[in-house]
Amino acid sequence: MSRPAALSGFPEWLPAERIVELSILDTVRRVFELHGFCSLETRAVEPLDQMLRKGEIDKEVYVLRRLHAEDDEGDNGLALHFDLTVPFARYVLQNAGHLDFPFRRYQIQKAWRGERPQEGRYREFTQADVDIVGRDSLAFHHEVEVALVMAEVFRALPCPPAVILVNNRKLAEGFFLGAGAADAAAALRAIDKLDKIGAAKVADLLVDEAGLTPEGAQLCLSLAAIRSEDTSFVEQVRALGVEHPLLDEGLAELAAVVGAAHSRMPGALVADLKIARGLDYYTGTVYETQLVGYESFGSVCSGGRYDALASDGRTTYPGVGISLGVSRLMSVLVGRGLVTASRSVPTAVLVAVTAEESRGASEAVADELRARGISTEVAPKADKFGKQIRYADRRGIPFVWFPDSDGGHAVKDIRSGDQVPADPGSWRPPQEDLAPVVRLTSPENEEIHP
Amino acid sequence: MSRPAALSGFPEWLPAERIVELSILDTVRRVFELHGFCSLETRAVEPLDQMLRKGEIDKEVYVLRRLHAEDDEGDNGLALHFDLTVPFARYVLQNAGHLDFPFRRYQIQKAWRGERPQEGRYREFTQADVDIVGRDSLAFHHEVEVALVMAEVFRALPCPPAVILVNNRKLAEGFFLGAGAADAAAALRAIDKLDKIGAAKVADLLVDEAGLTPEGAQLCLSLAAIRSEDTSFVEQVRALGVEHPLLDEGLAELAAVVGAAHSRMPGALVADLKIARGLDYYTGTVYETQLVGYESFGSVCSGGRYDALASDGRTTYPGVGISLGVSRLMSVLVGRGLVTASRSVPTAVLVAVTAEESRGASEAVADELRARGISTEVAPKADKFGKQIRYADRRGIPFVWFPDSDGGHAVKDIRSGDQVPADPGSWRPPQEDLAPVVRLTSPENEEIHP
Repeated sequence: MSRPAALSGFPEWLPAERIVELSILDTVRRVFELHGFCSLETRAVEPLDQMLRKGEIDKEVYVLRRLHAEDDEGDNGLALHFDLTVPFARYVLQNAGHLDFPFRRYQIQKAWRGERPQEGRYREFTQADVDIVGRDSLAFHHEVEVALVMAEVFRALPCPPAVILVNNRKLAEGFFLGAGAADAAAALRAIDKLDKIGAAKVADLLVDEAGLTPEGAQLCLSLAAIRSEDTSFVEQVRALGVEHPLLDEGLAELAAVVGAAHSRMPGALVADLKIARGLDYYTGTVYETQLVGYESFGSVCSGGRYDALASDGRTTYPGVGISLGVSRLMSVLVGRGLVTASRSVPTAVLVAVTAEESRGASEAVADELRARGISTEVAPKADKFGKQIRYADRRGIPFVWFPDSDGGHAVKDIRSGDQVPADPGSWRPPQEDLAPVVRLTSPENEEIHP
Repeated sequence: MSRPAALSGFPEWLPAERIVELSILDTVRRVFELHGFCSLETRAVEPLDQMLRKGEIDKEVYVLRRLHAEDDEGDNGLALHFDLTVPFARYVLQNAGHLDFPFRRYQIQKAWRGERPQEGRYREFTQADVDIVGRDSLAFHHEVEVALVMAEVFRALPCPPAVILVNNRKLAEGFFLGAGAADAAAALRAIDKLDKIGAAKVADLLVDEAGLTPEGAQLCLSLAAIRSEDTSFVEQVRALGVEHPLLDEGLAELAAVVGAAHSRMPGALVADLKIARGLDYYTGTVYETQLVGYESFGSVCSGGRYDALASDGRTTYPGVGISLGVSRLMSVLVGRGLVTASRSVPTAVLVAVTAEESRGASEAVADELRARGISTEVAPKADKFGKQIRYADRRGIPFVWFPDSDGGHAVKDIRSGDQVPADPGSWRPPQEDLAPVVRLTSPENEEIHP
């Protein structure tokens, strides 16, 4: 086999980069579990016909076929899931009799889309979702809760400050209708293109496709420009003079989300009335997340309230969820060199081997260290000690252990060169050396332990 | 949507079952990292032509196609990987310039095969692999090492005792050749069917397909019957009187593996000379693993030494690895009811809500508990306390917290009914209640904390 090439859109990480990713995943899981979300995984595949009933992304789906399937096997109806929300809705319907509602779950898995790859947009990517789903009804306070859980995740991650931008689907649709739109969904789609095509072209779309007058279109653009950290957006919207019952409802809900977030975690959430979200199953609060200084990168964490995603005809399971794009975050943090791991292996100690005949003595030391939770390797070869130290150095392993000779055991910190006598039954490395540390390389120099 | 059905061969777990799986995955990762293996993930897909060069399982592969792919897009050459070894070999070749050898990695991911599903055999399944790969050469002691790492995993898991059965490809092939086989690979394939079709039919195959005499076939069956916990198998093989240089080499290697394992972890490894393994890339030591009392279930953990899986023509990367079938293990532990989780959620404490207006006070208590690592939920509704307690009880949440009223805070253990005054800034649950506990339901009642 000649040297294989990478596949565009299917990211793979080197060991030190994977340590960064693991530390993100560990942090996400820790925060989700602290808030009582249980872990779930769903299968990678869904029946194609059911999956395509949601959203507008049919052409981006990968379908599966068994290589030697017979034509009549009917195995062709499966496709890889393109997100974790649609499979979760299916899981809830399928298992409703075994679940307790409101049901809180997190799900960290890969998803696949056949999109044209570009920076931060992959064909295979990892998502980390939290959702809360009720039976028949779901209390509004959960729309505040999932956003604050994700804000807590961002504060615990080694990444630039994140701002969760929040809007409300009822507010936007009510405003568009009040401003005279014939097709509120078309207005929503037009506003969603603001960052891509600019205000002038969006105004044209609002007139041509949503049926607004030029004056109505300008009101919608004024709405989209409103942004506030507190509930002051309400007055700014009211000042535009548009009225509609759905707008009132949306304003009250968004004010409740932003007000609660502002008092509990100031600065984490910002009302931003241009946020629309592409998928059309959201019915209330919607979220997008920007990394400060990397706004052009797009949203790294999005979601919202959905009332009708899961329904079996008799019972409806309304939910609210938010999804962190782990791969997209990695492409900022690692792709842009913002974050590094202190070493490429979990190993804290390399036990040197004096001669192959005494490998057993080195293994015994390693076993003693591991029994106390210290990640340890034994040198693969009884080379000269200098070469064994280089083995550790290349991987960033901080300590080399020299097993009992005439002078007893000794351990060397190969960064400082300090060597001290040590007992394998009691010696411990400093806490900060026990596992790799992931640090922001920017001046703030925050850190987390994976 | 009517109630969706499960897909045969694509297992999904309920929350309490997923807690069992997570505890297995956490244990596996902890032991692998204690031994200095770094984490890797590879993409789910490989180019079909490269993947099919290894092994004999072409008809079991799922190929991918973008739903709206144009005929000329060339996107049709991708398939889901059927194991983690072939992708890892490709990763090593692709990234050799960025890796340090010997390279130690673990990999916990899903794989897919279009096989007919049956108990313990899935179309989508999770594997946990460790491999050590050298450049040009790889020391033999790693063939002992990976088996003992996996033995340590099994001792840490809540599962029936496991025995890693070990054989050596050189030993078997040398013996078959020495016994007069014209085609040693055919003899290997025949012996591999021993459990399925029995000795008489295997003897026929050895004669018909491997070119052995009936006497030679009987010698091979005698070899396959040898099993020992220590190195006494060497004498038993010698007593059969077959001679071949490859047999000598294999006997010496297997004696070294079994001898080292017997002294370091008695009973964990057993020499079993009928073990053959289906895939034909193994070249030395091979492993299979049986759960005692569940032998009919087949191997839950297999692997071996491969010398030529990864080669770019100039450089060869020999390796040794072993792979735990996590889904197969789950189908024994959960499917047979051997293991249970103490609750279905990570939550240790539910904070009750006295009235919706005072939800903020309950949130504040929850934040204080979470800040000290205690998984906490706030009740979703200000129901009567009895109903809130039932919310906790249904999920197995052990404690309900009643926030400050006239008498101060109080916390109730809902299992015993004991209620005590408590300070949210200092109260802790007992260590055994902090996270769900996964226990064997058999008399031994071993347990692990996920």
